[in-house]
Amino acid sequence: MPAHLTTRPEYSLLIDRYDTWMFDCDGVLWHGDRLIEGAVEVLEILRKRGKRILFVTNNASKSRKSYKAKFDALGVQASVEEIYGSAYASAVYISSVMKLPKDKKVYVIGMAGIEEELREEGVSFIGGTDPADCTLEPFSLSSFSLDPDVQAVLCGLDLSVNYTKLSKAFQYLTRNPGCQFLVTNEDSTFPSADGLLPGAGAISAPLRYALEKDPISIGKPAKTMLDCIQAKVKFDPERTIMIGDRLNTDILFGQAGGLATLLVLTGITSKQDITGPNASPIVPDYVTHSIGDLRVVDGQ
Amino acid sequence: MPAHLTTRPEYSLLIDRYDTWMFDCDGVLWHGDRLIEGAVEVLEILRKRGKRILFVTNNASKSRKSYKAKFDALGVQASVEEIYGSAYASAVYISSVMKLPKDKKVYVIGMAGIEEELREEGVSFIGGTDPADCTLEPFSLSSFSLDPDVQAVLCGLDLSVNYTKLSKAFQYLTRNPGCQFLVTNEDSTFPSADGLLPGAGAISAPLRYALEKDPISIGKPAKTMLDCIQAKVKFDPERTIMIGDRLNTDILFGQAGGLATLLVLTGITSKQDITGPNASPIVPDYVTHSIGDLRVVDGQ
Repeated sequence: MPAHLTTRPEYSLLIDRYDTWMFDCDGVLWHGDRLIEGAVEVLEILRKRGKRILFVTNNASKSRKSYKAKFDALGVQASVEEIYGSAYASAVYISSVMKLPKDKKVYVIGMAGIEEELREEGVSFIGGTDPADCTLEPFSLSSFSLDPDVQAVLCGLDLSVNYTKLSKAFQYLTRNPGCQFLVTNEDSTFPSADGLLPGAGAISAPLRYALEKDPISIGKPAKTMLDCIQAKVKFDPERTIMIGDRLNTDILFGQAGGLATLLVLTGITSKQDITGPNASPIVPDYVTHSIGDLRVVDGQ
Repeated sequence: MPAHLTTRPEYSLLIDRYDTWMFDCDGVLWHGDRLIEGAVEVLEILRKRGKRILFVTNNASKSRKSYKAKFDALGVQASVEEIYGSAYASAVYISSVMKLPKDKKVYVIGMAGIEEELREEGVSFIGGTDPADCTLEPFSLSSFSLDPDVQAVLCGLDLSVNYTKLSKAFQYLTRNPGCQFLVTNEDSTFPSADGLLPGAGAISAPLRYALEKDPISIGKPAKTMLDCIQAKVKFDPERTIMIGDRLNTDILFGQAGGLATLLVLTGITSKQDITGPNASPIVPDYVTHSIGDLRVVDGQ
């Protein structure tokens, strides 16, 4: 059973106990372009108390730099170095873990955010936002020329996904020996400002289905994302807490990394998902309705 | 162990034993636009001997009428009444089994073939080839108006699949109470003339993944397809044989319906798939390299 936090002494103890606070963003700090009430104040309270803040998001449609612009627009203080996105982690994985040779390439199903991060890490790529691949024209295998240098397919949320992209990725993954199948994250849905829409996991599902093969996933809950953070930031897992709205990504991610976990109910997960006979087997350490609840420690 | 047929007496016995011959098409009679050698002659031999011929295809991109045109173009004798496609079976399922009221609608992810069959069965639909849905423009949930009359989503192979279609289908399936999730078939790939491409099962995979729910599948191996044939044609399952190239659709379909099964190796399945320690658990009654092998009974 998770501890349901409700009182000022409980929130105060929580804040005292953890030095590093890792935040999921969508569903925790905001919904689409709408801030969650109290989120900005709580981040300010934590900063004033000397806490280290990190933003750990599976959103791969934006690079860290463009994600920073979103923080700015919403009036949330953040630096690029505090932001860890699955696009960035994927680029780091390809360059540092996979060690893709400089003359090899990645075929991208994804948006500008992935391309920016790959470019920053010096990884060559094709596909992505290339207009030649953003098309609903019929795909012809006979006029397709397989690039033998493509050694990985990286798939993230792509609002321009189409049959040409899926077919090309399928060719690389079945015809280029050793070609790796990577996905930025496996979220089945994402919470837009106006409701749920199919997520990055849904975009890669056709390849998974056609290949009968699971990809290597980089974002939460995968350990790869934590490895990426640990390579840049020193933190004590015992004094670190992961705050999120999704049990099978955020909370599982925190647990797999030996972090404490706080579930908020402002996003995907509802109270029914964590109570009663059909409760999820993934049990966070703490639950609170909204991140804004923590304002109470400052008497707000 | 299946019986591997190789000699004239074996093929003659096979022909004597079965009165109704159900053929898969892609990978059995042709690859894309290329006939498989001997296929036309074998169909002629069977017809001369008074056999009933049926064509049972999961291809939902064409209606029976337009599929007939493909037979004509390739010089293969066939009548529309002999052709059973998963688009037709889906339309029959919606009108006759689901009994969708006339004032309700289907949201289609699919091509003209599905639309033609739905129209023939008097089923109203939206989506499909509607230019408004065949777009790579960003999908906006705030400007989407949910049609409360949509009571089923039918998904088949759609070479114009895109995020707008997937998002609309997702909205109907999550927000219209009782909305049914149907797929014409679940083939992971399809054999084009120049190689494998993602199949209808891959097109519906994003919805399956985002909904965490399996659809009702109409085409082979589902019983629904056989029910559809049985409603129109009288045949004795004990004297009927299903010929196909795919174990988990054609052969499974035949077995589930109590039919004999003949696997050909001119399509998806290779010899390694049916022999040795990693052989599939789906074992056909008979195997022959190509349908053309049966020509030997006429001394050809």
